[in-house]
Amino acid sequence: MHHEGFIRETELVTSGVGRKAALLDICGDLLYTIGIEIDKSVLKIGIVNYVGEIIYFQTFFRNPIESYEEALDNINQKVKYTIEQSGISFNKIIGLAVGLPGFIDYKNGIVRLSDQLRWTDVPFAEDLKQLTSLNVIIDNGLKMKVMAEHAVGIAKGSQNSILVGIGSGIGAAIILNGEIYRGESNNAGEIGHTVVDPNGNVYSCGKIGCIATYISEGAILADCRKVKDLASIDEVYLAFRNKEQWALNILDRTSTYIALAISNISCLYNPEYIILSGELMDRIPEIKQSIEAKCEMYMWEPVKQTVRMVYSNLGDQGIVLGAAIQAQNTLIELN
Amino acid sequence: MHHEGFIRETELVTSGVGRKAALLDICGDLLYTIGIEIDKSVLKIGIVNYVGEIIYFQTFFRNPIESYEEALDNINQKVKYTIEQSGISFNKIIGLAVGLPGFIDYKNGIVRLSDQLRWTDVPFAEDLKQLTSLNVIIDNGLKMKVMAEHAVGIAKGSQNSILVGIGSGIGAAIILNGEIYRGESNNAGEIGHTVVDPNGNVYSCGKIGCIATYISEGAILADCRKVKDLASIDEVYLAFRNKEQWALNILDRTSTYIALAISNISCLYNPEYIILSGELMDRIPEIKQSIEAKCEMYMWEPVKQTVRMVYSNLGDQGIVLGAAIQAQNTLIELN
Repeated sequence: MHHEGFIRETELVTSGVGRKAALLDICGDLLYTIGIEIDKSVLKIGIVNYVGEIIYFQTFFRNPIESYEEALDNINQKVKYTIEQSGISFNKIIGLAVGLPGFIDYKNGIVRLSDQLRWTDVPFAEDLKQLTSLNVIIDNGLKMKVMAEHAVGIAKGSQNSILVGIGSGIGAAIILNGEIYRGESNNAGEIGHTVVDPNGNVYSCGKIGCIATYISEGAILADCRKVKDLASIDEVYLAFRNKEQWALNILDRTSTYIALAISNISCLYNPEYIILSGELMDRIPEIKQSIEAKCEMYMWEPVKQTVRMVYSNLGDQGIVLGAAIQAQNTLIELN
Repeated sequence: MHHEGFIRETELVTSGVGRKAALLDICGDLLYTIGIEIDKSVLKIGIVNYVGEIIYFQTFFRNPIESYEEALDNINQKVKYTIEQSGISFNKIIGLAVGLPGFIDYKNGIVRLSDQLRWTDVPFAEDLKQLTSLNVIIDNGLKMKVMAEHAVGIAKGSQNSILVGIGSGIGAAIILNGEIYRGESNNAGEIGHTVVDPNGNVYSCGKIGCIATYISEGAILADCRKVKDLASIDEVYLAFRNKEQWALNILDRTSTYIALAISNISCLYNPEYIILSGELMDRIPEIKQSIEAKCEMYMWEPVKQTVRMVYSNLGDQGIVLGAAIQAQNTLIELN
C-alpha cells in the first residue's frame, strides 16, 4: 500500500478529455460551466473553464432551515451574482451542475431524499433551469467529487478508483473504466449500509448492525450521550484533541470501523486508488494515522499490494470542480 | 426482491453474441471449444458448439493427492478420450479453457495458488497447451461460471450480475457492462475476506474476523470440534437434516453470515442479479429459505427493491459451459 501525502496541485491544466494541450490553451476560455456544492449550511459556486481550471470561486453560508422555495431563489441569486462578479459573459456558460448530499435521481433531475437539506422528491434540476435559464444536471456530491479526482485530481488517469467520504456519515463513489459506476438504481458504493454486526445497533434505515452505526456523527454522539451530557459532536472532537480517554476510546473504535469499511470495499472492487476525504479527517487529522494502521491489519494482502491509499488534494473545491467537469461531459453533447 | 425457482432450461439455443439464429443454426457445428472444470476430486470435460450447447459431457473422478505432473498427464488423456468418444474431428476444436479453484493469473496462464489442488505457481496453460496441442486459457472457476450465467443462463442478457458461490469457502464473480470485472489484480469479488468482526477468529489469510470464518466448511468444522468429535463436515449436514439442535444452531449462524455477505456485496455493487450457487445449497437445500429470510432483514431497502436473487439453473455443468464460452470469446480472435 502506497501512502501519499496531502499535496495541493498548483496547476490543473488539462482535463481528462485527451485533446491536445495547444488546442486546449486556445479553447480554454471559450466555454465555461458552473459547479455548485450545496450542503446543510454552505453553498459554494465555481466557474470552471474548458480545461478544468476554476476561474472564479465563492463560498456562501446558507440557512439550514430555509424552505425549498427559498433555497431555489437563494441559489439563483447567488449564481447570477457570481457570474456578474466573475466578469464572464453569460452566453459563454453552457450549463451548471450541482452536487448535493442524499439520494439523487440524476437521470430525472430529482432529489429523492436529502436529510441534510430536508428535501423530498423535488424536481430540483428543472426548477433551477427555469430560474437560471441554464441547462442543469444534479448528482450526489461524492459522485461529483470522484469525477474531479479522476479528471484532474490525485487519481488522474486511473480507470479504477474509489472515493471514500467520511463526514456526518460514510459513503463511497466509484470510477470504473473511467466512468462513474452507479449500479442498477444509482446506489452502488453505499458502504454505510453494509452490515458488520448482526447483534449491533439499529440504524435509521431500519436495519441492525450497519457499519455507519459505528462511524456517523449522530451515532457517535448518541453513544457518548448514554454517559455524558454533550451538546454536539464538537465536544467529542475537542475532548479527543485534549486526549481525554473516553474520546480517544470512542474514536479509536470509529477508526477501526472506518478501516473495515475501506478494507471491505477494497476487497470487493480491488481498485487502483482509494481516495480518502471528508470532514472527519479535516477536523481531526490525527485519526489518519490510526486508520492507516488498522487498514494494515484488516486489508487482504493481495489487494493491499496493489491499492494506493491517498488523500484528496482538491481541498474544499472538489465537489464544485467535479460538478463543473460533469457538466462539460454531459452538456457538450446537448449543445 | 424477486425470487425465482430452480428452473432447468431445456433449450440453450443462442449465445449472447447477437448473431441471427438462422446463421447460428448453420454455423453451430463448424467450430467447437472444450470446457474443463477441475476440482479437488473431480474432473469434468464438455465439448460445446458455437451456439453455446454442450454436445458431449463427461465426469471423471481424480485422485486429490496426485502430483501436478500426474494431474497434467491425466487431464491430457481424458481430453483425448473425450474428443474420441464424441466423434468430433479434432481440427474443428479451436481451443480449451479450464476453470479451477484458487488464485489464478489468467493473463499469464499461471495458477498462483490453489489450496484445493495443492498447486503453487505452475504455468498450467502453457503446460497443457504443449500436451494437447490446443490453445488453452485458464481462470478461476467462479469467473467461468458467471460467464455461463450471463451468456446462456439465468442472468442472460443482464449487464450487471454477481454470482455468489458457497462451497468449501465463499466467493463472488462479477459481470459489469457484460464483461467479467476483475479489478487491478484479478481479486475483485473476494467477499470471503471482507471483515465483519474485529474481535472474531483468525483466518488462514492471517486476518481476524473475515466473514469466511463463519461460513467455510473448515471453519464450521473447527467450531463444532471444540465440543464434538466429528470426522467430517458430512456429519454436520447429517445432524442438520436430523434436526439436531446443535447443527441447526451452527448452520443458522452460517446462514446469517451468508446473508450478510450477499447483502453487503449487493449494497456495494447494486447489481441486477445475485445468482446463488454452490455445494452447500446443493447438499442442504433447506438452508435457502433461511438465507432468503435473513437477506430480507439485512439487505438495504433501495438495493433490495431492484435486485433479483435467483439460483443458478446450470446444474453441475456451469463451469464447463462458461469455460467453453470464454474460450470462444477469447480464442476466436486469436485464430
